[in-house]
Amino acid sequence: MPSFRITLAYDGTGFVGWQRQAAGQSIQGCLEEAVRALDERDVTVHGAGRTDAGVHALGQVASFTLERVLPCETIVRALNARLPGTIRVLDAVAVPDDFHPRIAARRKAYRYRIWNSDVMNPIERRYAWHVGGTLDVARMQAAAALIAGRHDFAAFQSAGSDVDTTEREIFVSRIAECALRQAQGAPSVSRGGFAESRLLVYDVAGSGFLRHMVRAIVGSLVEVGRGRRPAEWIADVLTSRDRAAAGPTAPPEGLFLVSVAYDDALAARS
Amino acid sequence: MPSFRITLAYDGTGFVGWQRQAAGQSIQGCLEEAVRALDERDVTVHGAGRTDAGVHALGQVASFTLERVLPCETIVRALNARLPGTIRVLDAVAVPDDFHPRIAARRKAYRYRIWNSDVMNPIERRYAWHVGGTLDVARMQAAAALIAGRHDFAAFQSAGSDVDTTEREIFVSRIAECALRQAQGAPSVSRGGFAESRLLVYDVAGSGFLRHMVRAIVGSLVEVGRGRRPAEWIADVLTSRDRAAAGPTAPPEGLFLVSVAYDDALAARS
Repeated sequence: MPSFRITLAYDGTGFVGWQRQAAGQSIQGCLEEAVRALDERDVTVHGAGRTDAGVHALGQVASFTLERVLPCETIVRALNARLPGTIRVLDAVAVPDDFHPRIAARRKAYRYRIWNSDVMNPIERRYAWHVGGTLDVARMQAAAALIAGRHDFAAFQSAGSDVDTTEREIFVSRIAECALRQAQGAPSVSRGGFAESRLLVYDVAGSGFLRHMVRAIVGSLVEVGRGRRPAEWIADVLTSRDRAAAGPTAPPEGLFLVSVAYDDALAARS
Repeated sequence: MPSFRITLAYDGTGFVGWQRQAAGQSIQGCLEEAVRALDERDVTVHGAGRTDAGVHALGQVASFTLERVLPCETIVRALNARLPGTIRVLDAVAVPDDFHPRIAARRKAYRYRIWNSDVMNPIERRYAWHVGGTLDVARMQAAAALIAGRHDFAAFQSAGSDVDTTEREIFVSRIAECALRQAQGAPSVSRGGFAESRLLVYDVAGSGFLRHMVRAIVGSLVEVGRGRRPAEWIADVLTSRDRAAAGPTAPPEGLFLVSVAYDDALAARS
């Protein structure tokens, strides 16, 4: 039976998250309903990452197996015709039957956006964390650099996880201030009333992530940015392996699953 | 009695527009309700521009007169405490009693965002126009340049307007492709599944604008981008003074009122 890997984007606002729940609308549930219409039978859709309620995706990856043989372009078109506008399938490729998007994933990239201003930008309210007051970005950059590398991330993992190891390798961990004229898109005549505001963007990529890991890292980086902790404190938190040592979990609306990468030989049927 | 000028931002999604209507929630209506709580009497709030249903603002300007004397910071805080999160007041300044934000305006700047891709980005669905197919940006840039200058814009005005003259001066009219890694904010590790997509941003600033003028200009620029018309056609449309000669009106969700500028002597009580 033909198996497919799809890339998808979604606005996580109002969803209970990726995973099917007893109540509420999930991304997985919406996809399974759309796939069922293709194949006229119940189909399980597997995801590369279980994004939480309110978390967005620009490049989530999922897979499923059909009984019918369908061209990839037909799958993209047919699924988008059935899905709500908050979920869009971007592409589909044929994969071997035993492909699982979580197990085969080699690299995941997340982005976390922070709107740093006394007043929240209403356009950003679903897509960024509103942090008031002054943030010292240079200190946050020094702290973010300490996350890169192979570490035990137990201190940045929420309770209730079920994983073999809390060790992960982080390839990229950096935070930058984004000029607002770029953030709003291209050469600007003005930043409107937000001349004093700024957008901070944290990019992180790694071999895998623990539950709430990116949000716990961001909550800790903001503690550093506020001057409550020195940058080097991040190293102490890692060593502690104690969730209570780290900062609070940043809210979900600022988080985006940007991409999931695979070994091409593994992922694509050639 | 003290008069105030406020700068505000809003997400126009779900509003009937700036202006109070018989049914539905308007920006003006929400503001008047919030100001009423400050002054314990009915107060009219005047706006610099009547944005349509679904149009957003990053720097709309409005004014009102109170009986109570209140510090500007108190006004900002008290209004934001009463307004929905979709509307935010960014600042307040005292102005002379006879200040009217529309009449005193010297320059308005708008931005229009186009998501050019086969599949819409769900994060952009409320903040950009989805245009599929190939757009020739160089041709659109040549066409946009023809809008700059002093012209009679009757051909880009919707029916039902009540204005003395359809002549306006346009100071800036340019369209640019925004690198997606910038559009999403700062150094990117990936663009997710949207590697083939692009964001086009049209910036226009002028002495004033007619009803639906920016949206009719954008609809015409897209006709040029699609290759249906040459860039020079824009000059013919201007000369025609005929709305039927121009392109269709682009949808409201891509449009942002970015800023309104005043002569400082006129606007601020010194």
